[in-house]
Amino acid sequence: MHILVIGAAGMVGRKLLQRLAKEPEVFGFEVTELTLADAIAPAVPEGLVARRMTVDLSEPGNAEKLIEERPDLIFHLAAVVSGEAEADFEKGYAVNLDGTRALFEAIRREAMREPYCPRLVFASSLAVFGEPFPERIEDDFLTAPLTSYGTQKAITELLLADYTRKGIFDGIGLRLPTICVRPGAPNKAASGFFSNILREPLKGEEAVLPVADSVRHWFASPRAAVGFFVQAARMETARIGPRRSLTMPGLSATVAEEIEALRRVAGEAAVKLIRREPDPVIQKIVEGWPKNFDARRAAALGFAAESSFDDIIRIHLEDEG
Amino acid sequence: MHILVIGAAGMVGRKLLQRLAKEPEVFGFEVTELTLADAIAPAVPEGLVARRMTVDLSEPGNAEKLIEERPDLIFHLAAVVSGEAEADFEKGYAVNLDGTRALFEAIRREAMREPYCPRLVFASSLAVFGEPFPERIEDDFLTAPLTSYGTQKAITELLLADYTRKGIFDGIGLRLPTICVRPGAPNKAASGFFSNILREPLKGEEAVLPVADSVRHWFASPRAAVGFFVQAARMETARIGPRRSLTMPGLSATVAEEIEALRRVAGEAAVKLIRREPDPVIQKIVEGWPKNFDARRAAALGFAAESSFDDIIRIHLEDEG
Repeated sequence: MHILVIGAAGMVGRKLLQRLAKEPEVFGFEVTELTLADAIAPAVPEGLVARRMTVDLSEPGNAEKLIEERPDLIFHLAAVVSGEAEADFEKGYAVNLDGTRALFEAIRREAMREPYCPRLVFASSLAVFGEPFPERIEDDFLTAPLTSYGTQKAITELLLADYTRKGIFDGIGLRLPTICVRPGAPNKAASGFFSNILREPLKGEEAVLPVADSVRHWFASPRAAVGFFVQAARMETARIGPRRSLTMPGLSATVAEEIEALRRVAGEAAVKLIRREPDPVIQKIVEGWPKNFDARRAAALGFAAESSFDDIIRIHLEDEG
Repeated sequence: MHILVIGAAGMVGRKLLQRLAKEPEVFGFEVTELTLADAIAPAVPEGLVARRMTVDLSEPGNAEKLIEERPDLIFHLAAVVSGEAEADFEKGYAVNLDGTRALFEAIRREAMREPYCPRLVFASSLAVFGEPFPERIEDDFLTAPLTSYGTQKAITELLLADYTRKGIFDGIGLRLPTICVRPGAPNKAASGFFSNILREPLKGEEAVLPVADSVRHWFASPRAAVGFFVQAARMETARIGPRRSLTMPGLSATVAEEIEALRRVAGEAAVKLIRREPDPVIQKIVEGWPKNFDARRAAALGFAAESSFDDIIRIHLEDEG
């Protein structure tokens, strides 16, 4: 079987490939061919053999190049991120909408040439949701994004369902929780502090908390995120039904709960490294984010995440320590 | 003020123009210029002066031609209909998605050239919804279409909200109920019988009822539909908020209730002209349609429809008799 990973240089792509390197049969079949594509040259993890392609999906002809080898399983993880899609309207639509549609159309044209129906796992986002929210967002809550990025993801979810319904591919969209603890250096994403206030103190370094301790949000570990993609690749998709995008399970927790878990795992000294520095801009952004989901459909389909921040911290120490 | 009607040859377009001919100030301002566009040559109703354009929005350059005169108010009513969009995947996406996006992009580019922000009223559809439904569909129920047509309408709703949020135009999407009584000859739309079983008997002619009397659906008269577009053109849009597409009010009624109203208005002789001829194909299609909505947001914004089938029949007799 041939696997194509688009967006292979990103955090989730790299972790997914590391899992494959450790567990060659993780997808339930033998991987005979592996293609890694990204706009920047993707690294091939130790233990894997792969073709690497540096391509921008939004440029004409590139989607066809990715599909001409007829991969059986496609992970589409590539995107212009939220902030950039908001700042650069044309680029966001070109990559996140037109690039993705070019991929879908390349599959349709390949299938018209000769029967073909790959499984396609798409990384969607909670950004498909917009305020006002109920206390707990159910699986049948409307997608009313408040950013161009969220709009592009919501549109892709609709296309994914329609192309799947038409038998062009076998699509699944996964709306990931905020990934915590994100490995690597602190970044400037508005959500960065959720990871920073754990990762940095665990290393004995200071971290800034720009919001109130009462802020609640929806989390899963990088390991859980990889598990979602593995499950989407392996599962019996007939069980999903026509609504092909699923809100992934997660942990609804407050910043205070994060800090209490840090205290239990690493003690008061670690907690003292968190410096409170309220930032009204970040506060305002984060206020508009969902706080809690009832991700019942995904749970029933075998997707699972952590149930405590203690687990999230433990997993971070095991995987990154 | 310059008004552009795209899809001016369709039923709602023609009725909207007839209303304008009778009531020149219906939109709350003086119409100094009127452009009627459609893929087939649109007629100009008596009493109106208009430029006519026969254009296919999906052909390059046509959207720009429609926008270069900078209309202040745009009604976008044009679409490849449901059955055709399902049968011809490429045509449905080309017209309903790419054609509409070309229109939105033409406005964006015009606005970049020189400040411009027209009001844009878009005819959406209940086809954005797909089963399973709750008993009564609330305004925050998800759009999960089960047809390519519904997918294209749902995607346009997302684009409409994002372009409006970005200040490119002032957009409103109206999800119309099934229009009843549809004037003209019986047509082959799966929903045609809802109108046929009233319109034909009222003329002393036979009509076929292919489904059970217990079938429930969501209706408004052609006059109410025109009223929705008038309200969308006139209203203070700041009141809508970021969710720019609204389920229009309607009447939830069963076929039995339709028939009882016919009996009250036209007597037993008219009812006897309804011939029951069950059609499993139509039954199956109609089973998947929504039955009832709580269109609270639209009602609060001043949109109104009929509250009984007696009214719907009376309006039909007044407007078409």
